[in-house]
Amino acid sequence: MSGTVYIVGGGPGDPELITVKGLRALKKADVVVYDALVSKALLKHTRRNAELIYVGKRAGKHTLSQDEINRLLYEKALEGKIVVRLKGGDPYVFGRGEEEVEYLVKRGVKCEVIPGVTSAIAVPAYAGIPVTNRYIASSFAVVTGREAKEKTVRRVKLKNIAQAVDTLIILMGVNTLRENVMELKEVLPEDTPIAIISSGTTFNQKVIVSTLDKILSVVKDSNIKPPAIMVVGEVVKFRDKLWRYR
Amino acid sequence: MSGTVYIVGGGPGDPELITVKGLRALKKADVVVYDALVSKALLKHTRRNAELIYVGKRAGKHTLSQDEINRLLYEKALEGKIVVRLKGGDPYVFGRGEEEVEYLVKRGVKCEVIPGVTSAIAVPAYAGIPVTNRYIASSFAVVTGREAKEKTVRRVKLKNIAQAVDTLIILMGVNTLRENVMELKEVLPEDTPIAIISSGTTFNQKVIVSTLDKILSVVKDSNIKPPAIMVVGEVVKFRDKLWRYR
Repeated sequence: MSGTVYIVGGGPGDPELITVKGLRALKKADVVVYDALVSKALLKHTRRNAELIYVGKRAGKHTLSQDEINRLLYEKALEGKIVVRLKGGDPYVFGRGEEEVEYLVKRGVKCEVIPGVTSAIAVPAYAGIPVTNRYIASSFAVVTGREAKEKTVRRVKLKNIAQAVDTLIILMGVNTLRENVMELKEVLPEDTPIAIISSGTTFNQKVIVSTLDKILSVVKDSNIKPPAIMVVGEVVKFRDKLWRYR
Repeated sequence: MSGTVYIVGGGPGDPELITVKGLRALKKADVVVYDALVSKALLKHTRRNAELIYVGKRAGKHTLSQDEINRLLYEKALEGKIVVRLKGGDPYVFGRGEEEVEYLVKRGVKCEVIPGVTSAIAVPAYAGIPVTNRYIASSFAVVTGREAKEKTVRRVKLKNIAQAVDTLIILMGVNTLRENVMELKEVLPEDTPIAIISSGTTFNQKVIVSTLDKILSVVKDSNIKPPAIMVVGEVVKFRDKLWRYR
């Protein structure tokens, strides 16, 4: 009788943004396999004798490959353990949760996904930026900036996406910021508002607000570091009206 | 000394998908102002003497207009009350949360937004559909289907969005299903996978999976009702590999 694997979204950073269901799974876990972007405060909720396994990146390299993580989850489940796979944000938003679920389900392991608050929406919210608004933003798109090195599909389409939607959100885009901004400037007005938010929803949150034509020089004078999220579109202007609530 | 208003995302339906932070606010609230799409099970967490005010739709009509809701929140806060404005999903994803925050902040009321798990991502997840995947979906867009009657911006752009992103998610699109499908068929292959999920993440969840060319006849033979979410794109095929976990 194998155990159960819960693929849990830990939320965007603020440890209180985990779901009640996710926290419940975490509290009963025998094994917790967690990533770099997971709030360390969440691990305090685990049982005293729970096994905590870090599988995030160190100095740009994954400590374990995705295949190795899949196998680890499988082996722990075979031992009859309650396993929590704890991820930052939501497991299905550039989180590879579906690869883990597919691997486990194929091998007959009981597996449940517990969605999380995605950074794509909550990080802008904590910075005073709503991704939609009925007057100015009836659509938003979320893309990953990290994919650039791996394949060309998105590079081709970033401009199309930026032109089609009202709000564009780029995750993990700090390292490809220059390329992204150059592309966006080709299709959007120079004065299009843009915000970059690093360590969003945490005490280290930093927010830079500018426009497409100025953002690169503004960023150069800052020390913004990953993880960061970019928001492009008119909704960024809401920040002036909403930020005081924090 | 005015009270505080918490604009809380109640999540997609499963009452355990509220955040720990949202639940904490709900438990201490003097007043809870809630919508139709909020899980009734969440209201059980409120204090015994809390005032619960329903402001959702009845027979297609809002019981209170947005202006009236804004004023209600303001007046309760002026009385020094702890007010929770409880919404389905996330307050900033077609939730008008930003309008309420703007109104309150302008009047000096302390106000905090507590993001929620958005239905746009979690409802597909519970149906076995990830909105992203590193091999086939590096972008997704979320649009509202309800906007059709109010303005023309999105109608013009739906086709562009569908062509630009890998995964398209349409919220509140049941009533405009035919129009949306006709438009999508103009720009996407006939065999593009599409799923419609109603009452997602709840015990009443229903899932229809088809392709663009057949979905209208399939829906006609079903009794799918709002609230429902449509997912269009290759990721829908994951359902066959992931659904067994539920």
